[in-house]
Amino acid sequence: MERAFQDTYPDDLAWCYGCGRLNAEGLHLQSYWDGEETVATFTPRPYHIAIPGYVYGGLIASLIDCHATGTAAAATARARGIALDTDPSLRFVTASLRVEYLKPSPLGVPLEIRGRVSEMSGRKVVVTATVTAAGQVTARGEVISVQIPEEMRPGPLRQA
Amino acid sequence: MERAFQDTYPDDLAWCYGCGRLNAEGLHLQSYWDGEETVATFTPRPYHIAIPGYVYGGLIASLIDCHATGTAAAATARARGIALDTDPSLRFVTASLRVEYLKPSPLGVPLEIRGRVSEMSGRKVVVTATVTAAGQVTARGEVISVQIPEEMRPGPLRQA
Repeated sequence: MERAFQDTYPDDLAWCYGCGRLNAEGLHLQSYWDGEETVATFTPRPYHIAIPGYVYGGLIASLIDCHATGTAAAATARARGIALDTDPSLRFVTASLRVEYLKPSPLGVPLEIRGRVSEMSGRKVVVTATVTAAGQVTARGEVISVQIPEEMRPGPLRQA
Repeated sequence: MERAFQDTYPDDLAWCYGCGRLNAEGLHLQSYWDGEETVATFTPRPYHIAIPGYVYGGLIASLIDCHATGTAAAATARARGIALDTDPSLRFVTASLRVEYLKPSPLGVPLEIRGRVSEMSGRKVVVTATVTAAGQVTARGEVISVQIPEEMRPGPLRQA
């Protein structure tokens, strides 16, 4: 069984609220390859409400964000022909995030988040994404991801 | 004591995960006027982690989103010289959200979110925002808010 991108992150980088497998309170988004695209599915919790009946926009932004940084890491590994769980980790962080909310996302159905790399240069990867609910694209996003700066990598002192 | 913008939302529009006073699981962001600007303060919970030691970017996007829609409603009420808790409510939703992450936001300190209206035309209000942590601006945002479309207002059938 193929592992989700996020499940290959090393333990010290697996605490993200949106997608880290070690964050007990988190959303645990899991992203996979689907041909040249990446895909993740997430069913919002009943309290992820904006207006009653519709999904909270901040959650949609969060899902796009985590799916895009995962996509950036996976696409970099694929482009270099190396494993995603290489050491040091290919973990990416977000430099900028843009989301257009095209229509309200109904609450109570799974959201499908799809990503595609639109640009890759050095440590920077640009990912575009769509969010689909009940067969309709409800949001589009663009994320500029950069490989994690060395000073953000958790060190022994920070972990202690 | 001045009420937060979000605390003036009518009951049927007060369920937002980011700022609705009736969402028991939510973040309960509260925004206020400060002269021509608006301000909110939020201390991330210990699990709102991106990389260990730093705040989750999706949370920052969420705070900017809710602060901006609140600012849009408050600024519209002020421009019209009417109360914010007027009926029908001036509730706004997000058409687009852009966040630039300038530097990592340290976890463990309050975040200050400041908003300012940059454009107001008809049902549309554009709000720019900054997020400050420990005296440094760590993120900038721009939100295009629109007054809630009639079809998104909860009706008796949806509430039943």
